[in-house]
Amino acid sequence: MIFMCDVSPRDGLQNEARTLSADQKVALIEGLRDSGLPRIEATSFVSPKAIPQLADAEEVMARVSRTSDCELVVLVPNKRGAERALACKPDELNLVMSVSESHNRANLKMTPDESFNALRDVIAFTGGKAKVNVSLSCSFGCPFEGDVSEEAVLTWVSRYAALGVTGVSLCDTTGMAYPSLVRSLTTRVLSQHPNLRVTLHFHNSRGLGLSNVLEGIRAGVTHFDACTGGIGGCPYAPGASGNVCMEDIVHALQCEGLETGINLEKLLLVAKGLPRLLGHGVWGQVAYAGPRKRLFDPTQAKQQ
Amino acid sequence: MIFMCDVSPRDGLQNEARTLSADQKVALIEGLRDSGLPRIEATSFVSPKAIPQLADAEEVMARVSRTSDCELVVLVPNKRGAERALACKPDELNLVMSVSESHNRANLKMTPDESFNALRDVIAFTGGKAKVNVSLSCSFGCPFEGDVSEEAVLTWVSRYAALGVTGVSLCDTTGMAYPSLVRSLTTRVLSQHPNLRVTLHFHNSRGLGLSNVLEGIRAGVTHFDACTGGIGGCPYAPGASGNVCMEDIVHALQCEGLETGINLEKLLLVAKGLPRLLGHGVWGQVAYAGPRKRLFDPTQAKQQ
Repeated sequence: MIFMCDVSPRDGLQNEARTLSADQKVALIEGLRDSGLPRIEATSFVSPKAIPQLADAEEVMARVSRTSDCELVVLVPNKRGAERALACKPDELNLVMSVSESHNRANLKMTPDESFNALRDVIAFTGGKAKVNVSLSCSFGCPFEGDVSEEAVLTWVSRYAALGVTGVSLCDTTGMAYPSLVRSLTTRVLSQHPNLRVTLHFHNSRGLGLSNVLEGIRAGVTHFDACTGGIGGCPYAPGASGNVCMEDIVHALQCEGLETGINLEKLLLVAKGLPRLLGHGVWGQVAYAGPRKRLFDPTQAKQQ
Repeated sequence: MIFMCDVSPRDGLQNEARTLSADQKVALIEGLRDSGLPRIEATSFVSPKAIPQLADAEEVMARVSRTSDCELVVLVPNKRGAERALACKPDELNLVMSVSESHNRANLKMTPDESFNALRDVIAFTGGKAKVNVSLSCSFGCPFEGDVSEEAVLTWVSRYAALGVTGVSLCDTTGMAYPSLVRSLTTRVLSQHPNLRVTLHFHNSRGLGLSNVLEGIRAGVTHFDACTGGIGGCPYAPGASGNVCMEDIVHALQCEGLETGINLEKLLLVAKGLPRLLGHGVWGQVAYAGPRKRLFDPTQAKQQ
């Protein structure tokens, strides 16, 4: 079983020029949940000044209907965010820092060590009221520094594992991962931390996203983030384009005989609604071509 | 070494609304060749009525300058096409039929057996004046019939191998291939025909193109078709979108430490010229994001 987390309500919408209404966000989250997604990153409790698109995080969390078969994760940058988030009773907090000093400074105005100290305080403050995941940005490379050493990533994973977090995400913030690197790094992380939930979070900036997911699965990873429509990016990461595309991954995994529990037809309906919702086309290919089992009428072929 | 064949001057341009001038086509082919591509499918000797975009096949072949390090392949549908093609002294003829009866009828107005008989006559007519490759459309599925049996594909490969062709291409005409199918079929073909050149030709209609290329390499394939910019399609194959993208593949193979002999920077210049040439955007991601080793200035990050 492969567990997909749809991060489009957070990683996707934070990058959109158009700010959706709370109604639209709640409908998007519930549409994803009704497609069978077991996890959704629903919003972010960052400063509304930094990400005005997600300023209504409390309202969205209060209004979205909750079910036991879908965990709602929320991004939290600091203690203030954790306070706001915990009042909304999410299933999990997703904390974030970058393993690259220059990217962490550009994104969070701190050194990685300062971020670690701050997040350690957030984890202590959370006190078990929600599960905690830590996302490690730039785990497969930094747009300012280039390659990131696997040892550096392993050190950060170990430091957070020692704090008792539920999981870590190895984030390919600007699409610098490639399959042999995915295999090498994730094999080492899984081998050192057999009881830690490891999630891979890829962007498709250089077209390698799906290949990286498939390689992660070969290496033994079972948790992945993706965005329906392949929307998303990072406002502080130049060259970043969309997250890997949820419906294209679900389709590919179906082809490979891997179960996600997701109803592809329902998910495709959500994906096909995105261009109207966002005011622009999105990346997904399967929403356009249809699943591979879709058959056409040869007498209609020339008109297509 | 992985040998890439750029089919954009043929499979790409035959699907464009805009017909390029012979000047533009010659410049495209020479630009690809100067990027280090060892093989280019330069044009098609189909009826100008069927594909008016390539009606100037003779002129293009007469004007393009030839070098010993780049083979020019031309598509040939029948004996009339072979006559026209051989007068232009290409390095190789690429013949084509579909392993799916309904797709062959829709595309070529013949049964597969009728196509085989006609192509056998073309091969005899060629008489060694050029190498011959046979492209087997719908080898990974048919948009009208669905799954295609591996045994059917293996039978067609064997029939052509018995005629002494240099190579066969297993063509994923409408993007229905997926990695485990690629591995299964190509492993069987390679094992039955160790001395036959086997080329994989993928379309990216469902986002699986690059993953399929990487899986083909794992299975032992060394020859692949792709289009710079990911342009292309099939006018008789509904749901088909672009071919796999050459520059994204070359970039991915570089990341993986696999040599193609292609200069990515030069190839990216060709790719970046395509939107102006064709009048629309193209699919390639690396032309937009840059190679993964491209570094950005953190002080400029927010402006990006």
